[in-house]
Amino acid sequence: MKTVVVALGGNAILQPKQKGTIEEQMANVNEAAKNIVKLIKEGYNVVIAHGNGPQVGNILLQNAAARDQVPAMPLDVCGAESQGLIGYMIQQNIRNELKKVGLEKPVVTVLTQVVVDRQDPAFQNPTKPVGAFYSEEEAKHNMETKGETWVEDSGRGWRKVVPSPEPKEVVELDVVSTLVKAGAVVITVGGGGIPVVKEENQLVGVEAVIDKDLASSLLAKELGADILVIATDVPYVAINFGKPDQENLKTLTVAEAEKYLEEGQFGKGSMGPKAQAMLGFVNAGGQGIITSLNSLRDAVVGDAGTKIIKG
Amino acid sequence: MKTVVVALGGNAILQPKQKGTIEEQMANVNEAAKNIVKLIKEGYNVVIAHGNGPQVGNILLQNAAARDQVPAMPLDVCGAESQGLIGYMIQQNIRNELKKVGLEKPVVTVLTQVVVDRQDPAFQNPTKPVGAFYSEEEAKHNMETKGETWVEDSGRGWRKVVPSPEPKEVVELDVVSTLVKAGAVVITVGGGGIPVVKEENQLVGVEAVIDKDLASSLLAKELGADILVIATDVPYVAINFGKPDQENLKTLTVAEAEKYLEEGQFGKGSMGPKAQAMLGFVNAGGQGIITSLNSLRDAVVGDAGTKIIKG
Repeated sequence: MKTVVVALGGNAILQPKQKGTIEEQMANVNEAAKNIVKLIKEGYNVVIAHGNGPQVGNILLQNAAARDQVPAMPLDVCGAESQGLIGYMIQQNIRNELKKVGLEKPVVTVLTQVVVDRQDPAFQNPTKPVGAFYSEEEAKHNMETKGETWVEDSGRGWRKVVPSPEPKEVVELDVVSTLVKAGAVVITVGGGGIPVVKEENQLVGVEAVIDKDLASSLLAKELGADILVIATDVPYVAINFGKPDQENLKTLTVAEAEKYLEEGQFGKGSMGPKAQAMLGFVNAGGQGIITSLNSLRDAVVGDAGTKIIKG
Repeated sequence: MKTVVVALGGNAILQPKQKGTIEEQMANVNEAAKNIVKLIKEGYNVVIAHGNGPQVGNILLQNAAARDQVPAMPLDVCGAESQGLIGYMIQQNIRNELKKVGLEKPVVTVLTQVVVDRQDPAFQNPTKPVGAFYSEEEAKHNMETKGETWVEDSGRGWRKVVPSPEPKEVVELDVVSTLVKAGAVVITVGGGGIPVVKEENQLVGVEAVIDKDLASSLLAKELGADILVIATDVPYVAINFGKPDQENLKTLTVAEAEKYLEEGQFGKGSMGPKAQAMLGFVNAGGQGIITSLNSLRDAVVGDAGTKIIKG
């Protein structure tokens, strides 16, 4: 039985133009769940990874708004909360959709920590703005007392910036593996995982953001998964995207991907990181697919989507 | 290898007089983890359940404070977030303490839903106040548009009240069982579990609070655990508590417990529900223990704590 890791975007769960009510998010997750269950029905083991950008952003805003009443939690803890929030929605909807098609399978969210390296150069150069805008006074206080990095954002106030280091190890990998072997649908590395470093063999949470596609690729590789699908808004990776000579790619070799990445064919905040994240997994012998959630089943069992292959 | 379910109070993680910073909570959890690891070292499978009162209370306050910017999440979703928050702290500290004593075991938080019955009389009589104080206007708006129950609280404002129905089924029981058999330390039914009802075989989240000791007792029973420990502030259950003739009990039969409960020997908000929660598990053939976290190991392997036994 083949194992497929499916990486969902945080935006697929809370769309940019939506307010983010629970009804909206549940409806989006239900749509995703229907597509994933189509794949499970074909007999694949499915492991689900997901982003958490909009959700952890909201949790940070809530922490900021109540900070005079309730001590604000650091980013690793907010990430853990977002894994609870999103994992619950996915877990419940997958289970419900499985029931509708007459399948009984355990569905489970594994709270997942991902190790990053304190020596990662990203820690010297934090670039990811997170959370609410604060006053200059509070920002400077946090810089002095907590060693955080804050930047002034074009008149809107001060915002914390955190590093985005590379994921090195999925702490709960053995648990995920045990559950997949037992036939469970596993939800893991939410938001790229809760970032932790190792200090004298002890895990310590850090304020950082791990790219969910890189974490999914690492997970797929370490798990020995057969296929990694990075779900996105479009059914195919394209070159000359949005131009008259746009070409949708049915296959993309590693060498081609590297060339296109260098040429800037793929958007820096969108397709670029997805294609980049695939390389480690495909080079290790896996089959990569980038496609839309609607095409998920057809891409895995048929010829939809863009296949990323060795070569 | 015997399986022990240990139920931790939410107050053991965020003590009533503390502010609730992450440093305080992590230190409390580390203390609990040290005691739990002593038990694991003796060769027991350990499953950890925990309360979430103070933490979900804080999440609700954060939701309320930011409600003009970010849609407030319902109680089931906030409960899921609290499972992420608390599970992360426990998972990391148990793993770190195991490492210190040279043990390698998977440690994992399983996001857990618990089924309650929509026909439970508690739904006709919601009594548990949750979350922030709101204005009369907003409270009445929520009563009219969402069918919620709100009560005026002696001049401090209006507060939502929710039912506390009985737990009927642990949805992720099979996953917990698989992981325990694989040798993992499992954290589950956090906050009594995320409350869901079954509607035409679909799970639907509800705004309710499940007693964490009742959920732990159900979990222990369904899991076929050997021992259920409900951890509390004191090493023994006592009768005539706080009086000159206080008597600490080494053993307590089900019949005695029922008699003392009827006599009001056990505090209604404290020892009473714990003793009550034990009955189902002990009647099903399990061994119950009520003791402090400090006495956890000695109570399980020796003669500390109060043993609740059949009879």
